[in-house]
Amino acid sequence: MILVEMGVIIMSEKQKIVIIGGVAAGPKAAARARRRNPDAEIIMLERGEVTSYAGCGMPFYISGMIQDYNQLFDTAYGVKRDAQYFGREKGVQLYTRTEAKSIDRDQKQVKAVNLETGEEMTFSYDQLVLATGASPFELPIEGKDLKGVHKLNHPDDALKIREAVDTGEIENAVVIGAGLIGLEGADAVFNKMVDVTIVEMQDQVLPGLLDADMAEKLHQHMREEDVELAFGDKVLKIVGDEDGKVKGVETEKRGFIECQMVIMSVGVRPNGQLASDAGLEVGKTGAIVVNDSLLTTDPYIYACGDCVENTHLITGDKVFTPMATYANRQGRVVGDNLTGGNSTFKGVLGTGVAEIFEMKVARTGLGEQQAKNKGYNVITALHAAFDRTHYHPAHGLMFIKVIADKDSQRILGAQAIGKAEVAKRIDVIATAITFGAKIEDLSNLDLGYAPPFNAPIDPVVHTVNFVGNKIAGMASGISATEFKERVEAGDDMLLLDVRTPEQFAPKHFKDDRVMQVTLGDLRERINEVPKDKEVITICAMGSRAYEASRILEGAGFKNVKILEGGLNAWPYQLEFEKK
Amino acid sequence: MILVEMGVIIMSEKQKIVIIGGVAAGPKAAARARRRNPDAEIIMLERGEVTSYAGCGMPFYISGMIQDYNQLFDTAYGVKRDAQYFGREKGVQLYTRTEAKSIDRDQKQVKAVNLETGEEMTFSYDQLVLATGASPFELPIEGKDLKGVHKLNHPDDALKIREAVDTGEIENAVVIGAGLIGLEGADAVFNKMVDVTIVEMQDQVLPGLLDADMAEKLHQHMREEDVELAFGDKVLKIVGDEDGKVKGVETEKRGFIECQMVIMSVGVRPNGQLASDAGLEVGKTGAIVVNDSLLTTDPYIYACGDCVENTHLITGDKVFTPMATYANRQGRVVGDNLTGGNSTFKGVLGTGVAEIFEMKVARTGLGEQQAKNKGYNVITALHAAFDRTHYHPAHGLMFIKVIADKDSQRILGAQAIGKAEVAKRIDVIATAITFGAKIEDLSNLDLGYAPPFNAPIDPVVHTVNFVGNKIAGMASGISATEFKERVEAGDDMLLLDVRTPEQFAPKHFKDDRVMQVTLGDLRERINEVPKDKEVITICAMGSRAYEASRILEGAGFKNVKILEGGLNAWPYQLEFEKK
Repeated sequence: MILVEMGVIIMSEKQKIVIIGGVAAGPKAAARARRRNPDAEIIMLERGEVTSYAGCGMPFYISGMIQDYNQLFDTAYGVKRDAQYFGREKGVQLYTRTEAKSIDRDQKQVKAVNLETGEEMTFSYDQLVLATGASPFELPIEGKDLKGVHKLNHPDDALKIREAVDTGEIENAVVIGAGLIGLEGADAVFNKMVDVTIVEMQDQVLPGLLDADMAEKLHQHMREEDVELAFGDKVLKIVGDEDGKVKGVETEKRGFIECQMVIMSVGVRPNGQLASDAGLEVGKTGAIVVNDSLLTTDPYIYACGDCVENTHLITGDKVFTPMATYANRQGRVVGDNLTGGNSTFKGVLGTGVAEIFEMKVARTGLGEQQAKNKGYNVITALHAAFDRTHYHPAHGLMFIKVIADKDSQRILGAQAIGKAEVAKRIDVIATAITFGAKIEDLSNLDLGYAPPFNAPIDPVVHTVNFVGNKIAGMASGISATEFKERVEAGDDMLLLDVRTPEQFAPKHFKDDRVMQVTLGDLRERINEVPKDKEVITICAMGSRAYEASRILEGAGFKNVKILEGGLNAWPYQLEFEKK
Repeated sequence: MILVEMGVIIMSEKQKIVIIGGVAAGPKAAARARRRNPDAEIIMLERGEVTSYAGCGMPFYISGMIQDYNQLFDTAYGVKRDAQYFGREKGVQLYTRTEAKSIDRDQKQVKAVNLETGEEMTFSYDQLVLATGASPFELPIEGKDLKGVHKLNHPDDALKIREAVDTGEIENAVVIGAGLIGLEGADAVFNKMVDVTIVEMQDQVLPGLLDADMAEKLHQHMREEDVELAFGDKVLKIVGDEDGKVKGVETEKRGFIECQMVIMSVGVRPNGQLASDAGLEVGKTGAIVVNDSLLTTDPYIYACGDCVENTHLITGDKVFTPMATYANRQGRVVGDNLTGGNSTFKGVLGTGVAEIFEMKVARTGLGEQQAKNKGYNVITALHAAFDRTHYHPAHGLMFIKVIADKDSQRILGAQAIGKAEVAKRIDVIATAITFGAKIEDLSNLDLGYAPPFNAPIDPVVHTVNFVGNKIAGMASGISATEFKERVEAGDDMLLLDVRTPEQFAPKHFKDDRVMQVTLGDLRERINEVPKDKEVITICAMGSRAYEASRILEGAGFKNVKILEGGLNAWPYQLEFEKK
């Protein structure tokens, strides 16, 4: 802005940038803009008391893995990210406890109020950045304000939950919602010796992130850990005692569940009201509409982080995907574009990873059902594999599922779960999907191999090869879920277990239709296998079952299927219910 | 082949496949061909006694991490891969101790000899597969046959080395050659309390795999572990005692080095003689020439594994890259093509990963010098980063270097090292390079983030952003190696350390040119910094140094460089030699 008074320039042409929101995207935009323009005036308004906190670290503070609360606010080099830090290190003027109330787009001004003093302030801008984030949704139920009802969205929440569990008085907690935050919260308090019940309206954990069959493996593990999973249920009200403290919840199906703590984690909603009030376009999800440059419908206003809508890189759909990594990357793009750059944020694959009750879970792209809903000719394969060579003592078992389009052979998505290095595999697939990879491309990847890191053929490659074999008519599979349903429905199948008798004896399906023939004996005993039946081949991981299916098909068997992932991936009991 | 005798077909039209070599590529080709063609006659000839062994597991057997020698031969489900296994499970007829001596391409016959009995055999084929592998090179020096001189190429070698170190009588070992196998062997015997000296003609470990500056970090670590690194030296002869046992080596520079064991690991040579004798084309490296389908110059003969030449995916050059993962993947391609398939193996990036003295090392694509030699307009960046969020207790430090082409902005290669999850990052970059990724593509990758797995912005993304900043003129860097040279040459530079006084006090460069100004004070103390000097900004990891360089440049400083990777990546002493 240039002001001229009596022929003299009294203000230099200083660009004035105002950023609303100081948690992730906002500070990133501010810092990047500063590095690109040393002269700009950069103002950042944050409604809360703290800024730039490590939201994703909160569960680790609750669990005690992070001891010091301050670590959630410090840089990697131990400096607290407060107003002094922003002023001195970043050259950014930070106003905390300052809430933006309205935007005057004509005047290019933001009206804000200091929440401590009530003082009203006006900030004029050349460019404005909306990084207003998202807020946790609150169920409108009785008892939601009782003492002991928490959300898990802000460091304050983490502090309160940790204080409560550290008293040792919390024996039972109910977590409402089995999304990522709910599960991480459950895991965190569980680590503090609190018994946990998770109440979820849907029939699985991480709906929208994991396919039902993949989620089953996590259910099995969580149940083994004695976590109570209350699926298809909902909390009707939270019940308090005479002191206003939580003493339980009343659910629709299971009735009363005693607890001294409730963590309500039923998702977040984008904070799009300020934008909407200013006449900026918001999408169906309530998130702010932006283009690839992260400009809103006003050419002087950018938006980034949890408050914006993203574009799905595969479907082109507009999606609401509030993730820290997008916020950070988008902040950088905005910082570029504020200062004459030409950066873009093209979209998201919804890549996510989490560690939940020591199980590692990762996913990217479309899930099986999502892909079907979009009209793809979906083909999937699930493979059980070790993340390292089986003879390396640190090897861990994982289950990896790839979703592809049969017509184009494009990879659409993948999910992996296990006490193993799943994140690497999903990152590789996410990278490949970004470039439109087909099955053959993934099969040919030159990935690093040494026994401490991988098998000579990476689990990703094995899994896409399985997809390729299916397409080529060389393999048919059946998922654990479908297999269980069909066995319980009494279908006339032969369950051919091709492991050795020593492996079979201690662990096998308890059913009359089971037949054990060691793979090595199958060629000579093949006449014992009834040719008129559907045969399901079974082993520990799936590879011997595949080999067996080829032997059978080579001998003229017409209806052979591999139990995908074998007994290791089996998420249910070994006994079947009769239906 | 169909034989008709007196009007009667006495042999059905069975495809006859002969495979020479039974370690990695051969068995894979055999198994895949069998799965695709249940009727083919598949014969595999192996000169050794054992087949399908886990060559890469040998160091772990020596170190004791793998206790049971048999694990090197077993499948993941505990079955030994011997003739019985190949016959019964895979339907493959295996002849061990059977060496192919010549190929009659007109008659389509292989002449072989049983090495036990001397019996000569002739195998006719419809298709032949050469999977003859590679052999360790033997230095033609005096003493090479002494007791205690080992190679590390075959399980027998591992068995002998382990037996020797388990006696407790080996106090010192000399490893000749600092390639991957040499280092893994050194690490393995070191774990058995053997002092190790590594003699290497070049000035670094892993030449050809790591850039010199990246190798320095490994040198520093190995020296801290008390491994002796004898660079630029060579062993002239191996000296024995009166019992014919090794008692030391005589080197060119360092003279006599006492030791009771020598591991000779000076590379392998492709076994291309059989092919060459049969008139098949072999390349300059001696490896067999194949096309994308892995056909040799004879349309009935395929070749795969360590005996073939590969095509570099970036340069198109023919390269000899004997790696287990290529052997396995190529075997599968050959198995497809033997049986009517149309698979290809397009080439390699030379992706490699290793764990050496607890440091994890990974690389892909071209190194800096390789890229320069190929005429690229090379730009690199080295970044120090944690593999997880810094507040997660399991975080580890890594150094990652990206090599790119300034003109096309294509990523050409990357290397990473650290006690951290480096393999994941290199696999991601390898995947991206396969698709011709540019800097912006990598910067936009949707990689999984959660505190146990990553930082919100992945180290890969940070590093390529650093490259992008350099190209945009927003950052200049100086490598540790160049910095050291220039400081020691007495160049007039200011070494501006922007860490806090508390961080500076215990660890900083010992030089008169050092000035400490905490980053947060730099804006107000900027007049203290001499503007006429070249300024090198220094911090722990590089990010504050970058921030400082932007502040200085914003204030008009013209010659500012970031010490890449900061003090954490510094591989030398903190004191400089005067030159």
